[in-house]
Amino acid sequence: MIDYDLRSLLEKMRAERPLVHNITNYVVMNFTANTLLAMGASPVMAHAENEVEEMVALAKALVINSGTLSDPWIRAMFLAGRKANQLNVPIILDPVGSGATSLRTRVFRQLVDELKITAVRGNASEILSLASKDTTTKGVDAVHDVEQASQTARIMADQLRCVVAITGPVDLITDGRRVVRCHNGHPLLGRVTGTGCAATATIAAFAGVTGDAVMATSAGLAFFGLAGEMAAAKASAPGSFMIALIDSLSEISPQQFADGARLEEG
Amino acid sequence: MIDYDLRSLLEKMRAERPLVHNITNYVVMNFTANTLLAMGASPVMAHAENEVEEMVALAKALVINSGTLSDPWIRAMFLAGRKANQLNVPIILDPVGSGATSLRTRVFRQLVDELKITAVRGNASEILSLASKDTTTKGVDAVHDVEQASQTARIMADQLRCVVAITGPVDLITDGRRVVRCHNGHPLLGRVTGTGCAATATIAAFAGVTGDAVMATSAGLAFFGLAGEMAAAKASAPGSFMIALIDSLSEISPQQFADGARLEEG
Amino acid sequence: MIDYDLRSLLEKMRAERPLVHNITNYVVMNFTANTLLAMGASPVMAHAENEVEEMVALAKALVINSGTLSDPWIRAMFLAGRKANQLNVPIILDPVGSGATSLRTRVFRQLVDELKITAVRGNASEILSLASKDTTTKGVDAVHDVEQASQTARIMADQLRCVVAITGPVDLITDGRRVVRCHNGHPLLGRVTGTGCAATATIAAFAGVTGDAVMATSAGLAFFGLAGEMAAAKASAPGSFMIALIDSLSEISPQQFADGARLEEG
Repeated sequence: MIDYDLRSLLEKMRAERPLVHNITNYVVMNFTANTLLAMGASPVMAHAENEVEEMVALAKALVINSGTLSDPWIRAMFLAGRKANQLNVPIILDPVGSGATSLRTRVFRQLVDELKITAVRGNASEILSLASKDTTTKGVDAVHDVEQASQTARIMADQLRCVVAITGPVDLITDGRRVVRCHNGHPLLGRVTGTGCAATATIAAFAGVTGDAVMATSAGLAFFGLAGEMAAAKASAPGSFMIALIDSLSEISPQQFADGARLEEG
Repeated sequence: MIDYDLRSLLEKMRAERPLVHNITNYVVMNFTANTLLAMGASPVMAHAENEVEEMVALAKALVINSGTLSDPWIRAMFLAGRKANQLNVPIILDPVGSGATSLRTRVFRQLVDELKITAVRGNASEILSLASKDTTTKGVDAVHDVEQASQTARIMADQLRCVVAITGPVDLITDGRRVVRCHNGHPLLGRVTGTGCAATATIAAFAGVTGDAVMATSAGLAFFGLAGEMAAAKASAPGSFMIALIDSLSEISPQQFADGARLEEG
Repeated sequence: MIDYDLRSLLEKMRAERPLVHNITNYVVMNFTANTLLAMGASPVMAHAENEVEEMVALAKALVINSGTLSDPWIRAMFLAGRKANQLNVPIILDPVGSGATSLRTRVFRQLVDELKITAVRGNASEILSLASKDTTTKGVDAVHDVEQASQTARIMADQLRCVVAITGPVDLITDGRRVVRCHNGHPLLGRVTGTGCAATATIAAFAGVTGDAVMATSAGLAFFGLAGEMAAAKASAPGSFMIALIDSLSEISPQQFADGARLEEG
């Protein structure tokens, strides 16, 4: 297990209630806002080009996610992102569907190139779609093996110059040097829309109260995964699981978080 | 307690099922529609500039709310609003985040200036952001004291030429002369996204069946707050509370409403 | 009862997990995605003009629905629709609010004229709004009588050159020759927003695994209606019903589907 003081981290987040500015997709806006509210953070959604810079200046973290990209939103992402960089507001990127269409792949690569991103979270294919051609080809095979997956994640972190979180049955978090594995989670999370996006938002909530990006990312994924485990103990079908998940995000105490997080180095 | 016949008002609303046209933000659309359906009204969401005038002509009330403003929506708000004024369809305004960014403050002030609004509902800082500079400065201090809060609300109602509802632990409703206080509500409402917006929609549902704007606003806030109290008796965490809230909106009988509303003059 | 092998159809759908591309309205996006995920299909929402063609090429079915129409989305609907036709991806149309505003009526008529639609699902007034003038006038009266309703549905299927599903207390499905009646469903479905749209998405999920459009449409409506019946056995108010509905979509086994579907010829 890892030496993070997760108890204090959750206490701090709930005391400070960091404002998280989300430029996110239509499908998950409500669920993301409820995730942030339930865990103890403060959500705001704003995407207009003529207000995102002002909004992000009020925020402690910025989430850029777009499963439902369109040109005006892309412009708003860059405007908000540049302002966030100027003000040292951490940016957490969720490249939903990167790799599926060329628009998404192109936009997310550009975001990573032009902005200083704090962390990016996605599944293996989304993360690898952001890589240079050579890495991709190797990478797709590599992620089937745990050791090679770590290696690939480290290469991606170096290429993208940020913390990379590849989520799956076991989540890998790395800044290119340190590697953390997160074992929290439950298969029912895959049966509810927007749980990946919500996990990204929990990373942003922790990044709003600590400058240690590997810790914030690991904590976010462990916290959200633990809430999934607790929800699965109460509900076995996706509708009631989704509601129990929101409940659990609110109910996890700092001590339960410290006890239940399953993070390990390596 | 106040002399409103809330029993008949709710019966009338459920019998007539007023169509409420919402130009509202992405985050709360689904929750707002479910709130209106559950309580017994008929929701419609439409924002295209080339159909809002036709849509509002079918409606008994118009909600203008935008936590997720953008230029095309702003144009649609003015188009729908002017048509509503021509046809005497009441407009209920929810200035989400007014005061947070200059875009929002400017747009909401302009809406209040150019349209005849029936009622505006917001928290103290949203409402005060709509005021002239002098009022704001005084107002921010004023709302901490109950008597001065009433005074501030009355001044705002005069300035905005409409019913003003300042929601908080106790809600204040006034048209500048009559003042009503609503004591219904529950802290868990603050842990679910879109409950303020949904409360605004309930006001619109009642405004769709009565021309007494102070009564419609008071009834809407009492009804929604009472549903929150009933939900809190069944659920203690935000996910299950949100679902119990929708259930309660549907289950409150006219007699329960009349008995449970805690409205007082003054 | 009808001779469809619904047990195998559901097994096939859950085994293949067809990707359903939705260009749908803001209000129901989350609920539609959760419906598709719960039943066993794979949802994707994408509406940008510069990616819909690429996205639909990955999909097994396309849903075009817009309760919240606007010009850029209309352009995306035509782009995706033409590409779907080229690739023989079935298109399922949900003309939400057609007849309520001239924009909606015009757009949906144009979609039906310019694209090869596999099936269209709506209530009687939405479907009849797509008809030529003469049919409409007759039709509105006709649907009150079961025999005449069948006749009207057949005429509409001929006019629209696709399978037509008119949903109501009893659903009518026809390609102009064969007529199927679906008796599944529950009144509480009318108290939750987006259930009509979600029913359309279930049709698309089945159309993604069978080329028999009458069967896919009948199966989708029977499956969704059966889930409503099962949910109503567990919940009596709209909030908890909505959650039980999502649960039921996931829990219905192939055998329960075969036993519970109430479809008849005629």
